[in-house]
Amino acid sequence: MWVEGCLSAAGTVPAVALLVQKFGGTSVADPERIREVADHVARCRRRGDDVVLVVSAMGKETDELLRLAGEVSDIRPGREMDMLITAGERKAIALVSMALAAAGVESESYTGSQAGFLTDTNHTNAKILEVRAERIRDAVDAGRVPVVAGSQGVSTERDVTFLGRGGSDTTAVALAHELRADACELYTDVSGVFTTDPRVVESARKMHRISFDEMLEMTAAGCPKPAMRSVEYAHRQRVPLHVRSAFTWEVGTWVTEEDPDMEHAVIRAVVPDLSEAKVTVGGVPDRPGIAANLFRRLADADINVDMIVQNASEGGITDISFTVPHSELDTALEICEAKRAEIGAATVTADPRIAKISVVGAGMKSNPGVAATMFETLAEHGVNIEMISTSAIRISCVVAESEADRAVQVLHDVYDLANTDF
Amino acid sequence: MWVEGCLSAAGTVPAVALLVQKFGGTSVADPERIREVADHVARCRRRGDDVVLVVSAMGKETDELLRLAGEVSDIRPGREMDMLITAGERKAIALVSMALAAAGVESESYTGSQAGFLTDTNHTNAKILEVRAERIRDAVDAGRVPVVAGSQGVSTERDVTFLGRGGSDTTAVALAHELRADACELYTDVSGVFTTDPRVVESARKMHRISFDEMLEMTAAGCPKPAMRSVEYAHRQRVPLHVRSAFTWEVGTWVTEEDPDMEHAVIRAVVPDLSEAKVTVGGVPDRPGIAANLFRRLADADINVDMIVQNASEGGITDISFTVPHSELDTALEICEAKRAEIGAATVTADPRIAKISVVGAGMKSNPGVAATMFETLAEHGVNIEMISTSAIRISCVVAESEADRAVQVLHDVYDLANTDF
Amino acid sequence: MWVEGCLSAAGTVPAVALLVQKFGGTSVADPERIREVADHVARCRRRGDDVVLVVSAMGKETDELLRLAGEVSDIRPGREMDMLITAGERKAIALVSMALAAAGVESESYTGSQAGFLTDTNHTNAKILEVRAERIRDAVDAGRVPVVAGSQGVSTERDVTFLGRGGSDTTAVALAHELRADACELYTDVSGVFTTDPRVVESARKMHRISFDEMLEMTAAGCPKPAMRSVEYAHRQRVPLHVRSAFTWEVGTWVTEEDPDMEHAVIRAVVPDLSEAKVTVGGVPDRPGIAANLFRRLADADINVDMIVQNASEGGITDISFTVPHSELDTALEICEAKRAEIGAATVTADPRIAKISVVGAGMKSNPGVAATMFETLAEHGVNIEMISTSAIRISCVVAESEADRAVQVLHDVYDLANTDF
Amino acid sequence: MWVEGCLSAAGTVPAVALLVQKFGGTSVADPERIREVADHVARCRRRGDDVVLVVSAMGKETDELLRLAGEVSDIRPGREMDMLITAGERKAIALVSMALAAAGVESESYTGSQAGFLTDTNHTNAKILEVRAERIRDAVDAGRVPVVAGSQGVSTERDVTFLGRGGSDTTAVALAHELRADACELYTDVSGVFTTDPRVVESARKMHRISFDEMLEMTAAGCPKPAMRSVEYAHRQRVPLHVRSAFTWEVGTWVTEEDPDMEHAVIRAVVPDLSEAKVTVGGVPDRPGIAANLFRRLADADINVDMIVQNASEGGITDISFTVPHSELDTALEICEAKRAEIGAATVTADPRIAKISVVGAGMKSNPGVAATMFETLAEHGVNIEMISTSAIRISCVVAESEADRAVQVLHDVYDLANTDF
Repeated sequence: MWVEGCLSAAGTVPAVALLVQKFGGTSVADPERIREVADHVARCRRRGDDVVLVVSAMGKETDELLRLAGEVSDIRPGREMDMLITAGERKAIALVSMALAAAGVESESYTGSQAGFLTDTNHTNAKILEVRAERIRDAVDAGRVPVVAGSQGVSTERDVTFLGRGGSDTTAVALAHELRADACELYTDVSGVFTTDPRVVESARKMHRISFDEMLEMTAAGCPKPAMRSVEYAHRQRVPLHVRSAFTWEVGTWVTEEDPDMEHAVIRAVVPDLSEAKVTVGGVPDRPGIAANLFRRLADADINVDMIVQNASEGGITDISFTVPHSELDTALEICEAKRAEIGAATVTADPRIAKISVVGAGMKSNPGVAATMFETLAEHGVNIEMISTSAIRISCVVAESEADRAVQVLHDVYDLANTDF
Repeated sequence: MWVEGCLSAAGTVPAVALLVQKFGGTSVADPERIREVADHVARCRRRGDDVVLVVSAMGKETDELLRLAGEVSDIRPGREMDMLITAGERKAIALVSMALAAAGVESESYTGSQAGFLTDTNHTNAKILEVRAERIRDAVDAGRVPVVAGSQGVSTERDVTFLGRGGSDTTAVALAHELRADACELYTDVSGVFTTDPRVVESARKMHRISFDEMLEMTAAGCPKPAMRSVEYAHRQRVPLHVRSAFTWEVGTWVTEEDPDMEHAVIRAVVPDLSEAKVTVGGVPDRPGIAANLFRRLADADINVDMIVQNASEGGITDISFTVPHSELDTALEICEAKRAEIGAATVTADPRIAKISVVGAGMKSNPGVAATMFETLAEHGVNIEMISTSAIRISCVVAESEADRAVQVLHDVYDLANTDF
Repeated sequence: MWVEGCLSAAGTVPAVALLVQKFGGTSVADPERIREVADHVARCRRRGDDVVLVVSAMGKETDELLRLAGEVSDIRPGREMDMLITAGERKAIALVSMALAAAGVESESYTGSQAGFLTDTNHTNAKILEVRAERIRDAVDAGRVPVVAGSQGVSTERDVTFLGRGGSDTTAVALAHELRADACELYTDVSGVFTTDPRVVESARKMHRISFDEMLEMTAAGCPKPAMRSVEYAHRQRVPLHVRSAFTWEVGTWVTEEDPDMEHAVIRAVVPDLSEAKVTVGGVPDRPGIAANLFRRLADADINVDMIVQNASEGGITDISFTVPHSELDTALEICEAKRAEIGAATVTADPRIAKISVVGAGMKSNPGVAATMFETLAEHGVNIEMISTSAIRISCVVAESEADRAVQVLHDVYDLANTDF
Repeated sequence: MWVEGCLSAAGTVPAVALLVQKFGGTSVADPERIREVADHVARCRRRGDDVVLVVSAMGKETDELLRLAGEVSDIRPGREMDMLITAGERKAIALVSMALAAAGVESESYTGSQAGFLTDTNHTNAKILEVRAERIRDAVDAGRVPVVAGSQGVSTERDVTFLGRGGSDTTAVALAHELRADACELYTDVSGVFTTDPRVVESARKMHRISFDEMLEMTAAGCPKPAMRSVEYAHRQRVPLHVRSAFTWEVGTWVTEEDPDMEHAVIRAVVPDLSEAKVTVGGVPDRPGIAANLFRRLADADINVDMIVQNASEGGITDISFTVPHSELDTALEICEAKRAEIGAATVTADPRIAKISVVGAGMKSNPGVAATMFETLAEHGVNIEMISTSAIRISCVVAESEADRAVQVLHDVYDLANTDF
């Protein structure tokens, strides 16, 4: 039985469940896909599950709307932007609701406002203040499938608001929490979370389950999906997530609370990240306040500094290295250059051709040798480590970009991730 | 001065006016056109006019939404259809409002609901019950340009409703009436109303002005734009219309109350209509109730019968001919065939290759020779008349389709429409 | 190493390979996906592989072009249709080639004609006569990646031709054969071939490898991807196929020649098919020629009859049942009804609510008990079998539609498909 | 008769003509418009005309393709760009040809290559070397309507080439010349050439006829349509142009050789142009070579300098003012600033808020008072003239942007353009 499978995988979903299912843009990109979604929901209903849908705008529609806005105007009043963008989800919920009708499932569409999402007035990036989900709860009780527009609400000033890109996940998690749903399923175009990038390592394996903490470290380390914001939110609200595919419909990866009895593997995943560049400020006097001065200035300019390493001082002179996203490298260099005289630095150099390789695993906490294994393995394969940083359950090394694929491959091998199944 | 021009043309628009301007789909089809609309409104504002905009969905978007609905489902719940379709205008009003901001014009977008359009619950074809235009009036008073979504409202049950295709004209006329606007301008892709079809007669001339009665007879005779529904509505509400182009921006055609002092031309336009077919029920006994029996049955089947002619009886036997749209010909023939035995008719025949040629003009009422001139002219040029019908200000003749272009040309010539200017 | 993985999975791809990679519509649906394809190809090039790309039209573009054709005309001249449709792939190859340039990969786009695909003159469904791939071979030898438009060629009369929907797979297999490529990779939106439908059975497992014969039986049994035509063609040309995902990029399913030493599992997959309906012609005299008469007539009407069962005669009277696609049911019934008197049948009845459940596996040939297990298992779970048919490596049973999911689940369990790995 | 009308208007088109009709993007933007084009061509054929069509890509498709290119890559190889862009016209010609088939008109589509357009190898902006129009001529002789893809050809190296934006007009004029057509009709979304901008002056009037020289001066003065390149080309090839609307289908404006007997009006049009800005280099020593030095440097940077005025020297010091497009103002200012020391100038200032107002008319050559009238009229209405330049048949004045509308209005009045008909 499907439900038994869920139980065994996640240990959380009862035989007859209330599921919030969120379908992202690619999952409802065209009529054919929308009909597939409706068929899937009809099947869930036949199994006895109650279902609440949260739907994003179709395919690339949000991008398209933003592009149109950019072409009509270089001024983008927030109120009008939200009126514009939220049209995309309205269209999607109406179409999904019609497709459900054709599949024999009673349903009704709800805008964010109708679904009870009350937000602040921060247009284009509103925050949810409260979810008054009575209409949704009533619809479920009446045996209907509510189809809720993702990422939208109504502000305290009665204007339409948008929760920002990726906000549909937030809508889904918030509804799941509010309705005390058994799980929140995020349907997307990937089939789950993998032990590493399958493009780099052929034996990369889809994980059946991962803890919130591990998932958060993976996204922090550069894993692109699911969005960190929704994982954090689900973690806080204690809503089990199921990241799965609306193309293959196979079981995906459950993201849940850590189960102390069940966890055995030390390392769960190797995460490569090629999106950052390294900046080195060289020949800096080793005086208090130098770093503070520099990084305050970078923070004021909204530069996302990730790793920071300061070498031991030699003769009162030291080097400070840090990484920033490629897109922010130019600005970061300008700021360092401008600060150079003030902080007495000798040089400012940049290396855009680096890769950050991270290993993540909750088991690391009780296994002291993980870092040593990582360093040894890279050394054995001639991969030079340029920077290191660690958290309780993650170790990240910066290496040359040209070594990235090899580093990922040998780490995936040494921790035997292809064969460690849960 | 532009305003003087308006005065001389229409006799109704004061120096500084309140104008409701409706922009149809082709007028806002893409960002370039939307920016042109914004520039035009900015110019009107600089001249001192107050402007309220009513905007349709961009280009073919409504068709596209209907197509998507058809592809996801063969069931189309009215509530969901209206949720879907009205997304198109929301998108358009937000974009137009942003373009106005870029052009330096303060504005705000309003959905049908926000603009105060209260409708019945007849989804996909709702009727306006009331227009509570306070927010619009306040915005105008505050010096802003309200941008209102055309063809939509909110029902007495608080659901989103759609007024049907072409409903934006109705929204504009209703707002113009409610706000006591000086005129309602319908911007479209044609430059006005012509004395005949310019594809048929090269010397066809755009009219500066036409009366509501004449305009209504022209649309009844087959003239495609503006839609009869909005003309009737404007006539009833006594709102002067200005049908004009959002491509050339030249002055178009004013549709206004008839001015008894000003009207001189007997005939204003020659209107060809190739959309109908002729049905003849032959050898019918000349008994009371036969026609009633037949046409009641056709009416029950929603057949739009236009012209009806019954020949004089010979020996108690007569023929009845009538015209119907091509699209309804097959159904009409089935009904006549089914009735044939009952009404004792000998034959049922159809001729799809006919054309209806109408001449329209309010001056006809006081000029008895118009019909004679029409018949003589057609006869002189060898055009055979198959059917005739008249109203107070219109004469229509059915001729063979192959004669249509020639008939239109010679009638346009004989009434000297190319040179009769107002 | 990736290449070792390929070797172990398929036993056919050498360390440095020549790969023909075909990307379907969803794989190049938008700029983001096209850039991902380019990144993937760049990575393959860095590994030392030679790559030839075959690209379909973006996303739903072919559907869109067909729709436009339908909206402008009810006449569709073949020459013009092919001029129209092939514009879609031209657009895609140019964009993919530009994306490759941006990813640092030298490439050049080729239309079907430029790539040497010579076809017959059968517009909209042309057959390949010859592939003169010199330009493609030269490009590969020169270190470039040719990007070839799928599904198109030039006819013997020098007109542009289209190979039909799904023809890009054929283009790819033909090129792979002509270039003696090591493998033909079909990138799509599914991650491979599964042991059964993951929507029905949660423990459905992606297969690493399957033989051509099994794959063909699976597609015949209703498995939607890959298209039977391309599998047959690859089988005939002995080109190993790799069906894999352009979304997750994980290793997919290899379709290859059967390896006599390696094959152990008796059953590989359980395939449900809900697309057919059952027709029963009852009370037929048990005379020679009756069935021939009926099925010849159905064949003449292009009805795709799948299964046929004739019951044992009782008193010289028998029943004939057969299945047809739902879309052809009405026509099939009309034909049977029309034939009823002639063949002396008592009744014609239809049941659209059936499901065909097939088990497929090459091991069946040497394992006599497979059918018995299937029937017993269904009986134990109370699933009634209405029709049975078999091939050398497939057994199909018709059951009630409402029993389909349960039947698939219990068969997947009894043959232990979730755990039988290759 | 339509043909008589043409004769009287243009004096060039015989009773039964060979017409090259070019339909721009908006004229074939969707299926409905394409069917309208087909109906129009069918009507022309019934009148006995031979017709050759030249068709642009549908609506905004070329923009869309360029956008896609920009989103997949920042490298745009010319060969691939032309492969991409030309897909748009291929699609359009196939659809138009199908629509003609549905309208009962025999036709065949031709790519640029098939139509015989041989070009140089200058991708994205190729020049026509030769037109080998045999296939087109044969099709016309056989009674078919060839539908030719605009703006494309095949290079001397057998690659697909694109003639650049607006190149369809060039294709049409070149074909008209090559086929010795009686006229080349450019169908667009405006109804002709107006005496001034109808948005500014309500009484602006569409001209029936204008000479090539006047049309060229108008486009040089800022009139947006038709493109100068095609007018020049038609002028050189002596092909009469007819600029007209594919929306209203009314007769437009003929652009032809000047007829010495017919021309009476001194001034034909008032053309406003708000697209330029003024730069003033002040306090320049009045030495030979200073201006040459400056304007050579601007020319080398591809700055389009339009008007140049140098004031009389006072004490050996002078000012030089010139106008450039707004989009090039920043670069122009940088260059002037960089040159300032070298040429010894005191100041560099810019004024972006200017308008150039031009009056154009061939009659000016024999009417000495035109300029005086222009200056007096502007002075009377308090409009200050900042710069003046003249050609044989044009006078341009730069005024403040805020005075532009008033200047245009009073000049249109003083030359009585609303009532001067030809």
